Amino acid sequence: MARGRPPVHSREALLDLGNHLFQRHGYHGTSLSMILDACDVSRGSFYNYFGGKESFAIEVIEHYQALEMDLWREEFSRIQGSHADKLRTMMLRLIEDFSDENERIGCLLANLSGEMALASPEFRHAIRDAIQRVIDAINDDMLICQQEGSVRTDLSASALARLIWDYWQGALLRMKVEDSRQPLYDAVNMLWQQILPAPEPNDRPVHHTREVLHSETH
Amino acid sequence: MARGRPPVHSREALLDLGNHLFQRHGYHGTSLSMILDACDVSRGSFYNYFGGKESFAIEVIEHYQALEMDLWREEFSRIQGSHADKLRTMMLRLIEDFSDENERIGCLLANLSGEMALASPEFRHAIRDAIQRVIDAINDDMLICQQEGSVRTDLSASALARLIWDYWQGALLRMKVEDSRQPLYDAVNMLWQQILPAPEPNDRPVHHTREVLHSETH
Repeated sequence: MARGRPPVHSREALLDLGNHLFQRHGYHGTSLSMILDACDVSRGSFYNYFGGKESFAIEVIEHYQALEMDLWREEFSRIQGSHADKLRTMMLRLIEDFSDENERIGCLLANLSGEMALASPEFRHAIRDAIQRVIDAINDDMLICQQEGSVRTDLSASALARLIWDYWQGALLRMKVEDSRQPLYDAVNMLWQQILPAPEPNDRPVHHTREVLHSETH
Repeated sequence: MARGRPPVHSREALLDLGNHLFQRHGYHGTSLSMILDACDVSRGSFYNYFGGKESFAIEVIEHYQALEMDLWREEFSRIQGSHADKLRTMMLRLIEDFSDENERIGCLLANLSGEMALASPEFRHAIRDAIQRVIDAINDDMLICQQEGSVRTDLSASALARLIWDYWQGALLRMKVEDSRQPLYDAVNMLWQQILPAPEPNDRPVHHTREVLHSETH
């Protein structure tokens, strides 16, 4: 909103750069001097802004996650259909948005998760919280889908949310290795055609009848 | 087998160290000087042994994968039961073997997969091949399970193999973040209780009957 020359070292620009570097090099593969060189900022200014590499990385994670979750909610609210249809559409859009240039918090969280062996308790905690926020959001979505009858109810919404998160993270990794979005498309189809759907309503009376028959013969 | 003082810089010892360093620091987070320092070997000897960091990493992957696959086959052959029971038992043993000290090729592949943005074509190719070898092995297992009737046949063995691999890799990542094996136990239960099983044999006649009835009324 301020007029005049935009600040080159704005907090936002530094976070943006951090996101880019951590995505590409991982947390431990990104040295402080790489960050300072890339954003052409002095060590003093950087510490003044963020206090250190770790608190910088935590701020990168939280900033991009908040941003992406807001975007998701906004886009989601503009789609028509059942909650399940909307979720499936959003997952497909997410895949379409993936490209070499387009970096996502889900990817960043998957990459950073691989580096946990060396992480400090604070950093581990920040990543765990960020992942839990997404799993909680998926849990809420599954509850709504279960209520509308589009998702099975024999498994808890939270068990399904953890399954979706883990499966999606694994598919993200294979996308990187195979340089193909196919693993993500496969995951969306597998989830929405095989794993998540509630049984067809006309299956129930038949099962019920059989159970009644079965108990009658005993 | 050779007598006398064991060579400190044996090829095997260096590969072991590489496995440890790449597991902990990732590929790009492990500098050549870290490798040289840790194994107390000269740059010249290292290049003489391996030709460079990348070909060293590829050899680490291939060496440990071959070793783990041999161990898996040997242990698998000593278990009794259906192929599905044996697979489930082996997956549970795999989880029990996980600990801070115990590093596995599956973990290494998950971690390295996260770093693909910066990988050379050769390195990417080596990781993709290593992953494909495991997926192929799971595919063969699924085929046997489908033949023995313990795994559903409405999805191809290869689709199931890719699902198992992706889901397991995601659960491995969350194990690291939460410092808990629960995500892996959850994945084994979800797979063998919900996703993989063939429908109960006594479901079939009922479905068949209903379909016949259905077609008769049309």
